[in-house]
Amino acid sequence: MKITVGVSNRHIHLTQNDLDILFGKELTKSKDLKQPGQFASNEFVTIKTIKSEITNVRVLGPVRDYTQVEISKTDAYKLGINPPVRSSGNLKDAETVTLIGPNGTIVTNSCIIADRHIHITYDEKQKYNIPDKVNIKINGEKKGIIEVNVKPSQEAFFELHLDTDDANAFLLKNDDEVEMLNI
Amino acid sequence: MKITVGVSNRHIHLTQNDLDILFGKELTKSKDLKQPGQFASNEFVTIKTIKSEITNVRVLGPVRDYTQVEISKTDAYKLGINPPVRSSGNLKDAETVTLIGPNGTIVTNSCIIADRHIHITYDEKQKYNIPDKVNIKINGEKKGIIEVNVKPSQEAFFELHLDTDDANAFLLKNDDEVEMLNI
Repeated sequence: MKITVGVSNRHIHLTQNDLDILFGKELTKSKDLKQPGQFASNEFVTIKTIKSEITNVRVLGPVRDYTQVEISKTDAYKLGINPPVRSSGNLKDAETVTLIGPNGTIVTNSCIIADRHIHITYDEKQKYNIPDKVNIKINGEKKGIIEVNVKPSQEAFFELHLDTDDANAFLLKNDDEVEMLNI
Repeated sequence: MKITVGVSNRHIHLTQNDLDILFGKELTKSKDLKQPGQFASNEFVTIKTIKSEITNVRVLGPVRDYTQVEISKTDAYKLGINPPVRSSGNLKDAETVTLIGPNGTIVTNSCIIADRHIHITYDEKQKYNIPDKVNIKINGEKKGIIEVNVKPSQEAFFELHLDTDDANAFLLKNDDEVEMLNI
């Protein structure tokens, strides 16, 4: 079975309270993302640590009930931190970073490396008998197989989300097609 | 069979002529690398393109009979270029970049993304019956299998060389052990 790739660059999600502190206004939509209801905003923050900083990190909307900073391992080396690999919403042992917005600054204990994951509806997962972990085969000049988590939800656009390290290691771009093995 | 990982950050190799232009002096050794005769120098250049630049790129020694710039796909996006994946020494369709040293500047048509490869002696390759391509199994939090090229030479330290994209995608560090499948 084929699945398309969505490459996630570093980004953040914010609570309403943290949004208020950082921006003092609501998020404005730049464009809709493929996942239903999700959008890229026109708002950006700087992620700062003792070692370094990364500017122009986009905020995704809408606001959530948790703030979450998602970066790659490459970013983590630059920032001098060691965030855990986590599914979205699981902030156990997350790293602490400072976020700087135009209206204010917060220190947040919510920096993770997002796991490789597939968005799918509960219905699709059951219909196609897809397990909780899937092996994905990648062809091209840098071949391989990666294990990814399957994350069903009520509403979802069927897609494999990889961070920029995974995408770049396998020369994958947005909307490339890869293969789910044994499905 | 197990093999240790060596992570290659972006770096360059220079001809004597290009070294003369960029530095106007010989390379000085910072430390020996594991591959026999190879060393990290104390000399650094800037890689520049129309879009951007990357500073502090280390020169490896000794000088070679070709100049070669080895970067990651992540670097390539930053620089706005599209270098091919190549084995060292194969500069077919290589990208053009400008190198800036303390003594001068060159434009070189030699920028590649190095392929994933294993260094091994001809004798070891024959002894262990290792084919020209091998699948490497990576465990840990981000699991997978990657295909790598086997590059025998007369003298070699047995090691798997990955660039920073591959290493970071699989959370691998220098001297980590991974497994060669079916060998």
